Amino acid sequence: MHPDIESERHSPSFTVEELTNMLDGGAQNTALRRKVESIIHGEPELSLKDNYFMTQNERYEAAVKKKFHILMLAQRLGWYHGSRELQYASRSVSGDLGFGIHHIFQQSIRSLGSEEQIAKWDPLCSKFQILGTYAQTEMGHGTYLQGLETEATYEAATQEFVVHSPTMTAIKWWPGDLGRSATHALVQAQLICSGARQGMHAFIVPIRSLDDHSPLPGVTTGDIGPKMDFEHVDNGFLKLDHVRIPRENMLNRFAKVLPDGTYIKLGVPKSNYFSMVVTRVEILLSEVLPLLQKACVIAIRYSVIRHQSRLRPSDPEAKVLDYQTQQQKLFPPLAMAYAFHFVGNHLLEFFHHSKSFILNRDFTLLPELHALSAGLKAMLSDFCIQAVEQCRRACGGHGYSKLSGLPSLLTRVTASCTYEGENTVLYLQTARFLIKSYRNTQKSPGSASKGSLPQSIAYLTAPDLARCPAQTAADFLRPELYTTAWAHVAVRLIKDSVRHLQTLRQAGADEHDAWNQTTVIHIQATKAHLHYVTVKIFTEALEKLESQPAIQQVLRRLCDLYALHGILTNAGDFLHDGFLSGAQIDMARKAYLDLLPLIRKDAILLTDAFDFTDQCLNSALGCYDGHAYERLFQWAQRSPTNTEGNPAYEKYIRPLLQGQRARL
Amino acid sequence: MHPDIESERHSPSFTVEELTNMLDGGAQNTALRRKVESIIHGEPELSLKDNYFMTQNERYEAAVKKKFHILMLAQRLGWYHGSRELQYASRSVSGDLGFGIHHIFQQSIRSLGSEEQIAKWDPLCSKFQILGTYAQTEMGHGTYLQGLETEATYEAATQEFVVHSPTMTAIKWWPGDLGRSATHALVQAQLICSGARQGMHAFIVPIRSLDDHSPLPGVTTGDIGPKMDFEHVDNGFLKLDHVRIPRENMLNRFAKVLPDGTYIKLGVPKSNYFSMVVTRVEILLSEVLPLLQKACVIAIRYSVIRHQSRLRPSDPEAKVLDYQTQQQKLFPPLAMAYAFHFVGNHLLEFFHHSKSFILNRDFTLLPELHALSAGLKAMLSDFCIQAVEQCRRACGGHGYSKLSGLPSLLTRVTASCTYEGENTVLYLQTARFLIKSYRNTQKSPGSASKGSLPQSIAYLTAPDLARCPAQTAADFLRPELYTTAWAHVAVRLIKDSVRHLQTLRQAGADEHDAWNQTTVIHIQATKAHLHYVTVKIFTEALEKLESQPAIQQVLRRLCDLYALHGILTNAGDFLHDGFLSGAQIDMARKAYLDLLPLIRKDAILLTDAFDFTDQCLNSALGCYDGHAYERLFQWAQRSPTNTEGNPAYEKYIRPLLQGQRARL
Repeated sequence: MHPDIESERHSPSFTVEELTNMLDGGAQNTALRRKVESIIHGEPELSLKDNYFMTQNERYEAAVKKKFHILMLAQRLGWYHGSRELQYASRSVSGDLGFGIHHIFQQSIRSLGSEEQIAKWDPLCSKFQILGTYAQTEMGHGTYLQGLETEATYEAATQEFVVHSPTMTAIKWWPGDLGRSATHALVQAQLICSGARQGMHAFIVPIRSLDDHSPLPGVTTGDIGPKMDFEHVDNGFLKLDHVRIPRENMLNRFAKVLPDGTYIKLGVPKSNYFSMVVTRVEILLSEVLPLLQKACVIAIRYSVIRHQSRLRPSDPEAKVLDYQTQQQKLFPPLAMAYAFHFVGNHLLEFFHHSKSFILNRDFTLLPELHALSAGLKAMLSDFCIQAVEQCRRACGGHGYSKLSGLPSLLTRVTASCTYEGENTVLYLQTARFLIKSYRNTQKSPGSASKGSLPQSIAYLTAPDLARCPAQTAADFLRPELYTTAWAHVAVRLIKDSVRHLQTLRQAGADEHDAWNQTTVIHIQATKAHLHYVTVKIFTEALEKLESQPAIQQVLRRLCDLYALHGILTNAGDFLHDGFLSGAQIDMARKAYLDLLPLIRKDAILLTDAFDFTDQCLNSALGCYDGHAYERLFQWAQRSPTNTEGNPAYEKYIRPLLQGQRARL
Repeated sequence: MHPDIESERHSPSFTVEELTNMLDGGAQNTALRRKVESIIHGEPELSLKDNYFMTQNERYEAAVKKKFHILMLAQRLGWYHGSRELQYASRSVSGDLGFGIHHIFQQSIRSLGSEEQIAKWDPLCSKFQILGTYAQTEMGHGTYLQGLETEATYEAATQEFVVHSPTMTAIKWWPGDLGRSATHALVQAQLICSGARQGMHAFIVPIRSLDDHSPLPGVTTGDIGPKMDFEHVDNGFLKLDHVRIPRENMLNRFAKVLPDGTYIKLGVPKSNYFSMVVTRVEILLSEVLPLLQKACVIAIRYSVIRHQSRLRPSDPEAKVLDYQTQQQKLFPPLAMAYAFHFVGNHLLEFFHHSKSFILNRDFTLLPELHALSAGLKAMLSDFCIQAVEQCRRACGGHGYSKLSGLPSLLTRVTASCTYEGENTVLYLQTARFLIKSYRNTQKSPGSASKGSLPQSIAYLTAPDLARCPAQTAADFLRPELYTTAWAHVAVRLIKDSVRHLQTLRQAGADEHDAWNQTTVIHIQATKAHLHYVTVKIFTEALEKLESQPAIQQVLRRLCDLYALHGILTNAGDFLHDGFLSGAQIDMARKAYLDLLPLIRKDAILLTDAFDFTDQCLNSALGCYDGHAYERLFQWAQRSPTNTEGNPAYEKYIRPLLQGQRARL
């Protein structure tokens, strides 16, 4: 153990294990997770240690191999699909597994297929007799589903659909597992029957031979090539040239085509939509948030090992974590790493709560669920990306080395602003909900009592103060004070949004122009709303920790820091109408800066509590024992740049040095 | 030509060629650049097209090959070292060349060596009979040079220095060209002679055999392994185990060691420091800024090809550049791409102006030069990184594909926050200059007239308004108004910085604690100062374009946008003391939003004016003709993921599909 990190663990103000248990949702989960991790780390096939040295092809093969081994382990140990054990197994290999979309393929069939279709396809999926992908996104079409161009034209004579990519932009592009793995694709396509276009429907299209994996007739498929990350996933393309599939291959829970080509609508797949929303939140918790947590662990641990410069001339060089600027870089990300744990779990609970309503076809909660999950997905992923990059940069040059683990965390987390809904589009979906809800409160002042607004926006009609009552820096450490401040700003900005829309409409702009010309303003309002929501959820979650005062205290500091960091980086929104004065902003800043050294004391323990194994972190800088430089040196020796020779020497360097340029 | 991009070029409001000439510094430069580009693009060895498919080893070899070919071309065509032709050649291969540090090695010998030493080593460098690297950074030591641990101990008996890495953290780490290329290293080390430590000095240490390139005795060297980018550069490590070099290998222009071990100081290498500062600015202009310009070209061109959703239900899908949110993402980066062109060139001119003073040993201008170059390097690189990432994200999923070119632009530009001075350290250096200068104005109110302050901070004592006089949105389009606004905020924040320091000192904190506890505040003030400087330089540069009114007009919009974007993202600083009211912020926002559609009309032409060839852009999304999707499809076919077969099929997928899991 490096003494510089050991000393950080000497006098804990709280019990790390207790906090770990809380994050895991109970001590029994922690125990199970560790048991699974020790099994996983015992298998050499499941090691991540060569990841940074691999080509894209090698990463793909390794991910397929790992998936294969985990499937075998699961069979042997009785880990069923969806079990906690498999979740922990996936976490311990950082999700570096093949066939991730196969599960979504299967899930979609369960949601969109009829009972007979499920009976046919589900067992094939479970036994991996087929490998599926979900092919929605096209080269020229992403978020706007109505714009998809792939066509499925019904031919009554043969009772077949002819599935076809009519243009270059219609080529399916990006689906995971499509490039080199899948045998079947769930293709989203425009249904055309009896000459009429019926909109998007889902079709099961076999794409590769089950005998030799070669593409089937009419199918052009492959990998889309190098990406910023996710090299282990074979994102692919799929061009369909009049591929024929039987009528039974259209998933028909919500619509079907009769043999003669008659189209019959059977319902609206709202509950399917619900499961998409849950997926969005689960990905935040299982994929996005751990990337931020790991970045915090690595950067904060390294910041007590790294010494640089002197705080005063007579001192030895200081740990960089003792500099205010370093604390300012690293503690807001750490605060977010905890905040978003509570936010994500709150959302999941809300979904589980509303599930019973949805299953009973009561969709009252759906608009709020949708608005909340869309907006929070956008904000949390935006913040996680920024925060991971901040952690990376806080490690200076070594944060640029892949061996630190930080570049991969960044290139991976940065994808989250696009997948599962592009963030700008998502913010605007939440904005529409906020504006509509606000307008409803205005339309019928009698009936729009607080109770009638969805919970997360009840504050829109709550009593509001014109001025913040804070008189000292200490006042800004009161959760009620900063939550109220955020509510005030969010309400003001939402009103501002609505007013701008009205003004443009009154000036003669049509509804759509008015909307487009105010979208930047709507996004500003939406972000304030989401700030409010996260601060509120975080503070409420901490209120429940009364029985664990030490943990409550340390997390309260992070919560205060999170809220104040938000206020200070958006100070203009608080000063705009005089809700806060300049003097109060200075108080908030003082409160914020004074929190940094308090959090400093517990920083290492707060990162230890995430309990990532060294193998899972896979960082030369961030290991538990603090021996960063030794590892960096050892790991570099294994790099192909050192082990594969240097053909450039004989070809160019030697001739150059020996003045033989002219001869070449 | 894709009709969607062709239509953007139909009715130009200015002549693109004229703007290109201005950016190039004259039509004759444009002509020369194009001539060089056509030569370079005619050489298949110099093509970038397979870059995205290469491993780190392949990238390194390709960069060495390119350097070799360019050296031969230069010899054949008479392009001398440092010539415009070679600069243009480097630009056309995006700087993807080996031996980049060899030149810095040579330059350092010229600056730090005696006449005899220069006479010996300089020709060896010029003829490439040796290959040099500059070895300063150590594993545990970067920015703080006094902390370097490598030792050079003089031994009078043998008249040799013993150069040694006493610890793990003393290993040289990161120097370019060190990993696999260099034969000699300029090693910065602690000089120890006659038992006394004399601080950092430079030593020439042979590290690899000139016969077979093997490491010399006592030398452990190699490559530091995978990085976020710069894969073409062999950043390396160097561990020295009591390596002996002759006394003559200490560069002794400013200090020497006599045979008996007597240390003699000959001067302070201030002019060497000056050349480091110039390098910093040249890198901004030749390495950092083009990355932002390219990102703008790619993202804006692609945004007129990409259609998504409808602005109104009856319309066809709109070009994404027609959405306000997309304009808000892309036009501030575009404005920066122009702003920083003028800022960088202004700095270069300032340096050339002051060079004559420095050469005459008049160092009066040096503190300002240093503060300005440090601060602007930090701010410009920070902004370029943010802006490139914003461009990348604005391209949705395809911005995540390396074939778009955007990921590499980002991973490359992001290094600029660390190299040539870590940004936080640089901001604080500028902060010290600002605080010291401000204090000087306070100490002697009589002598501290405007004239006595360096030019870039003369505004510190200029008359200031308490309230901004703007009454309409249009007022915010007056350069004088927004420049004054930035000056006001910068002065207020610098005063605030000084006051916080004083308060802490008066409360009993020592100088160093007080500094550390206020660094976050100093950085805030410094950034405001730098905002002011860039806005001022941009507006002044445009005033000189009177003879080209069309260009002046279109750039004025970018300048307005740049200034207003800065005000709006830092609104709190303007509202804090009531300099701007909330109503005025709303006017500024209106002025800003109204600029977006005006810039929209010229957006494609403004990116065309940068005049990057398709080969140099190396982007499937951003080519001049707009055929983004065709290229994306074609380029993907060449990916090793499609050309190298899929061994995972036989090993894992086939057994899985055929239910043979148990057998494995």
